[in-house]
Amino acid sequence: MEKVAIVGVGLIGASFGLALRKAGYDGPIIGVSSEAALEAGLEAGAISDTAPLLEAVEQSDLIYLSQPVDRIIETLAKIGPVARAGTLITDAGSTKVAIGQAAAEHVKRATFLGGHPMAGKEARGATAAQADLFVGRPYVLDQVEGVQADEFRSWIRRMGAHVIEMSASQHDATVALTSHLPQLISTALASYLSAQSETAIDQVFGSGLLDMTRLALSPADLWFSIINTNRENVIRAVDGYIEALIKLKGSIGTDDFSSIFASSSSKAATYRKNPR
Amino acid sequence: MEKVAIVGVGLIGASFGLALRKAGYDGPIIGVSSEAALEAGLEAGAISDTAPLLEAVEQSDLIYLSQPVDRIIETLAKIGPVARAGTLITDAGSTKVAIGQAAAEHVKRATFLGGHPMAGKEARGATAAQADLFVGRPYVLDQVEGVQADEFRSWIRRMGAHVIEMSASQHDATVALTSHLPQLISTALASYLSAQSETAIDQVFGSGLLDMTRLALSPADLWFSIINTNRENVIRAVDGYIEALIKLKGSIGTDDFSSIFASSSSKAATYRKNPR
Repeated sequence: MEKVAIVGVGLIGASFGLALRKAGYDGPIIGVSSEAALEAGLEAGAISDTAPLLEAVEQSDLIYLSQPVDRIIETLAKIGPVARAGTLITDAGSTKVAIGQAAAEHVKRATFLGGHPMAGKEARGATAAQADLFVGRPYVLDQVEGVQADEFRSWIRRMGAHVIEMSASQHDATVALTSHLPQLISTALASYLSAQSETAIDQVFGSGLLDMTRLALSPADLWFSIINTNRENVIRAVDGYIEALIKLKGSIGTDDFSSIFASSSSKAATYRKNPR
Repeated sequence: MEKVAIVGVGLIGASFGLALRKAGYDGPIIGVSSEAALEAGLEAGAISDTAPLLEAVEQSDLIYLSQPVDRIIETLAKIGPVARAGTLITDAGSTKVAIGQAAAEHVKRATFLGGHPMAGKEARGATAAQADLFVGRPYVLDQVEGVQADEFRSWIRRMGAHVIEMSASQHDATVALTSHLPQLISTALASYLSAQSETAIDQVFGSGLLDMTRLALSPADLWFSIINTNRENVIRAVDGYIEALIKLKGSIGTDDFSSIFASSSSKAATYRKNPR
């Protein structure tokens, strides 16, 4: 790997650059992004150079697309026809099927391998980037017959992430449950509360409400294309979740209430116990 | 205030004792609880003495009931008939109407004023108690005609809590939205996920899922009586929330999706901005 391009120098892209450096990569890292993002990325040391998209793509043997899902799809249409053989294009988008389809359609000679680092934080942008953002976190890579990307995989491991390989469709079905559903649940809660006339709800609450509305702070522009490219899985998850909520409501005052609480509590505990 | 009894020396009761000390109270604090809780409370300095319930009630001019809701109701039935005039009985239960009704029925000569400190943490028990648990947190007190409890109110303020006065029924309607609904949403999420066969959901998730399942760790025994004593408000809140979720689901891919996200995000932000 002699030259890397990061397209979209935000939190994830800039953290990828910093993590690459920390893992021992000392070649050039070309940033492709807005002026402000490039400045912040250079300042943070996450990129070493800047270039327009096609120029960066021409020179690089790893192209890392860390934009919102809809932008990644647009970028693939632009760079797919020109990226040369021997180049690995990968991405950090939150859904994998739609991006994989765009890659299959547009990428001609280069290799494409989709990815999804399950890492992030509330703050956005290169100024919030961290070299250790991926440490101990799952990093999902597409499992695709015949795609060789051993060097890239080993860099991800050297960054401290746990590489998990699965098909794009299994990824999307999984994150519909573990990421997209929780996001919509949180947004719907804040939306429901925002429609209440009772003003005391703005005063009388504890830390639980803060936990449950943290995801609701997430920006619509990011989520619009995530949910839209995983629509069927998400709708199935929301419908199943509503059934679970109706069942819990119906159990109030009965023994079932306690047994639902017990299984939920033990499930919630497993998320905190897994070595990751 | 010359002698205080704390009935139920758990996280809240022991924190109340420590907070009283920190606020300058130097009289006796009698603990009434299980052996283990009393030992932990003495060790922590949250109580100075121990006594059986009726003995403690006889001697104290402030009786602080910090048990689960159903236990508070049982305790009121026991102590109500014997507590003497001039004694203030208060509680820290999470619902106020049912407790207020029990007090109206059983408390004969003493004064009752219900309360609810909106404070807590994941760990339970006197060993987790903190003198500053109530600092900056809302402390709801029943607004009742003719009840004088100025000295108690001023101790709560000296502990750093924000006293908010409202009727028991307004309290219960409010916490149905800000506390009980979020609890059931979190429990239903963990319950729904625990019923999935897809094992990858235990590996592929980010910090958002941890936020959204933190409340699901809460013990059933505490929540059974909370929800059961606020049943109508809670059912109304769950039904309204489900409508909001269905509306959000229906908005996927449309402009409404972005506008729901925007109002949710701004509501979530207000919870983080309020001076409290």
